[in-house]
Amino acid sequence: MNHQIRLKSRPAGEPTADNFEVAEGPIPEVKDGDVLRRTIYLSLDPYMRGRMSDAKSYATPVRIGDVMGGHTVSEVIESRNPAFTPGDFVTGYDGWQGYGVSTGDDLRKLDPTAVPISTAIGVLGMPGMTAFVGLIDIGRPQPGETVVVSAASGAVGAVVGQLAKINGCRAVGIAGSADKCRYVVDELGFDACINYKTDDLVPALRAVCPSGVDIYFENVGGAVFAAILRVINKGARIPLCGMISEYNATANPSGPNLRPLLVNRATMTGFIVSDHVDRAPAFQREVAPLVMSGRIKFREDIVDGLDNAPAAFIGLLQGKNFGKLMVRVSPDPTR
Amino acid sequence: MNHQIRLKSRPAGEPTADNFEVAEGPIPEVKDGDVLRRTIYLSLDPYMRGRMSDAKSYATPVRIGDVMGGHTVSEVIESRNPAFTPGDFVTGYDGWQGYGVSTGDDLRKLDPTAVPISTAIGVLGMPGMTAFVGLIDIGRPQPGETVVVSAASGAVGAVVGQLAKINGCRAVGIAGSADKCRYVVDELGFDACINYKTDDLVPALRAVCPSGVDIYFENVGGAVFAAILRVINKGARIPLCGMISEYNATANPSGPNLRPLLVNRATMTGFIVSDHVDRAPAFQREVAPLVMSGRIKFREDIVDGLDNAPAAFIGLLQGKNFGKLMVRVSPDPTR
Repeated sequence: MNHQIRLKSRPAGEPTADNFEVAEGPIPEVKDGDVLRRTIYLSLDPYMRGRMSDAKSYATPVRIGDVMGGHTVSEVIESRNPAFTPGDFVTGYDGWQGYGVSTGDDLRKLDPTAVPISTAIGVLGMPGMTAFVGLIDIGRPQPGETVVVSAASGAVGAVVGQLAKINGCRAVGIAGSADKCRYVVDELGFDACINYKTDDLVPALRAVCPSGVDIYFENVGGAVFAAILRVINKGARIPLCGMISEYNATANPSGPNLRPLLVNRATMTGFIVSDHVDRAPAFQREVAPLVMSGRIKFREDIVDGLDNAPAAFIGLLQGKNFGKLMVRVSPDPTR
Repeated sequence: MNHQIRLKSRPAGEPTADNFEVAEGPIPEVKDGDVLRRTIYLSLDPYMRGRMSDAKSYATPVRIGDVMGGHTVSEVIESRNPAFTPGDFVTGYDGWQGYGVSTGDDLRKLDPTAVPISTAIGVLGMPGMTAFVGLIDIGRPQPGETVVVSAASGAVGAVVGQLAKINGCRAVGIAGSADKCRYVVDELGFDACINYKTDDLVPALRAVCPSGVDIYFENVGGAVFAAILRVINKGARIPLCGMISEYNATANPSGPNLRPLLVNRATMTGFIVSDHVDRAPAFQREVAPLVMSGRIKFREDIVDGLDNAPAAFIGLLQGKNFGKLMVRVSPDPTR
C-alpha cells in the first residue's frame, strides 16, 4: 500500500496534528511511459503552510482529502520509460507519500557519487536555488557590502550567507538560538549572528553592521524586518521570499512603517523561486561544485518516518528545526 | 529689503503659522561673478515638511532661524556674470524670500516664449520630473497595463496619469474631492478617478481596474496604499516617492501587511528625484514638447504674496490645493 499524509482540515492559526490524516492509498498503476518510484526523502518547507489555507497565494491550495504536496528524493523501482531504470535516484514532487508515479517529465536524475542525494531537496534544491536567485539576481551583491539574512541556519539562509561571503560581502545572520548562532558563525563562516530571541535587535544590528545593511534577504517578516529598516543603507535591496513569522497568523498583521524605503531609495522585491527555472542550470553549475568541494556547507535535520511529518512541520513553523528539515520516508540505500 | 519666511520652530505634528517667522533681511550683495534675481514664483511641495523636522531624511533639515528652502522662478535684476543679463528668467532654489543671489551655477535659463515660466517649478520642474522618473524609469509601463496614481490632481500625479495614457496604459487616479476627480477624468483624460474620502477603496479599485493594477505610483501612504496592495497584479511595480499622509504624524504609523508583495512578486522602489539629474535632459526633451502642444495639461493653484506661503503650505499637507501649488512672490511680467 501507499502510505500517505492527506490534508484533513484547514488550520486556523497554528496547524495541529488534527489537520492531517494518515491514510493508505493504492500503489499507483504504471502505464506505458510511466516511472514508479519509492520516496526516500520528503522535504518540509514553510511554503507548505500557505498550501494548507485557501487564502489567495501564489500556488493552488491543497484540496481537503488530497495528499500534501512536497519535493522528494526517490528511487525508481519500476520504469516503462526508456529514460529511467530501476535503481535510478531522482528528485521530483511526489508529496507526503511513500510512492509516486508520472511520465518522468517532472523528474531530475541524481548522481549519488557526486553529492548526497538528499541535497537535491536542500542545498542543491529549491531552498538553495531560492538563496541563489534572491541574493545574486535580486540582491546583486557587490564586494564589501553587508548582507543580512534571517533564519540564517535554515535551508535558505545558510546558503545566502555563504554565497554572500563567496561574493566578497560581510555576512550577518539572524537566528533563534545561541546554538544556531554559533553554527552560523563557526561552521558556515558568517561574520556575525544575532539571536533575535535574546538580543535587542536594532543595537545588535548596529554593532555587527558598522557600515549599515546593503542587502537584507527577507524570509521572516515581523519584528526582524522592522528592525532592519532602521539600519538599511542608501540603495539597499530587500529580496523577499517569505514571511514565516506571519504564516500562522489568523489576521494579517500590519507591517512596519515604510518611510525608510523612501529615505534610503531602497528596493523591496517579492519573488517566487519557481518563476526562475531558467536560472536552474546556472545555479547547478555554480553552486554544485562549491558543495562538492565543501566550500558551501549544509546541515540536515532528518526526521524518520512519514507519520512524524506533521509534528516536524508544525515544529518548522516554530523554528524548532536546526538545518534543512526533511523526512526519511524509506531507507537511503546510498548512505 | 529682502522679505523672508524663516523657520522659527519645528512642528510637532501639523505645522502651524507659529512655526514660521516673517522677517526682513538685506538684499544680498552682488560680488564679481554673481547673479541677483527677484523671486516671481515659489514652489510649495510636500517634501518641505521633512525639512522642517530634524528626523533623519534624505535632505539636511532647515536650521531654526534659516530661510525656508524651495524651488523658485525669478527674474535676473543685476548680473556680474556674463552668462546672465537683467531681464533673464531663471529657475533655481532661492527659497521663501524675495531675492536670491549666487554665481548662477545653480540656475537654468527659461524661455518665456515657449511655455509659461511658472511651469519650471511644476509640470516641467521637479514635480514633473518626479512623475517621469518614477513612472518611466522605475514603473516601466507597458501598453495595456493599468497605472494607478494617488494625489492624481496634484503636480506629480497629473503628469503620471497623462504620461501613462501617452504610453498606452489605462490611467486611474485617486483624489480627495468630486471636483478633483472630475478634473482628472474630464480635463486630464484619465480613464477613471476614485474619491478616497467617499468611496470604499477596494471595491472602487476593483470596479475601475478590471484587469488589476500593474503600476501604483505611491506618494501618499496610509489607507490608500493598503487598499492598492489588495488589487496589484503579478509583477506589479510600486515606485515610492512620498508618503504625504504620514508627514504630520508624531509617531511612525505602522504600514500595511506586505504579503501581497511576495504573493505577486511585486517590487517597491523608493526614489528621490534629485538622484536622477542625469535624466533631466531626456525629461525636458520628451515632456516639454507635450506641454507646448497641449497634450500634457497642467493646473496651477497660485497664492499671491509671500506672507501667505505658510497657510498655503499647511493647506497643501491637508490636500486643500487643487493643482500645482505656488506662491506669486512678485508680479510675473510675462503674463
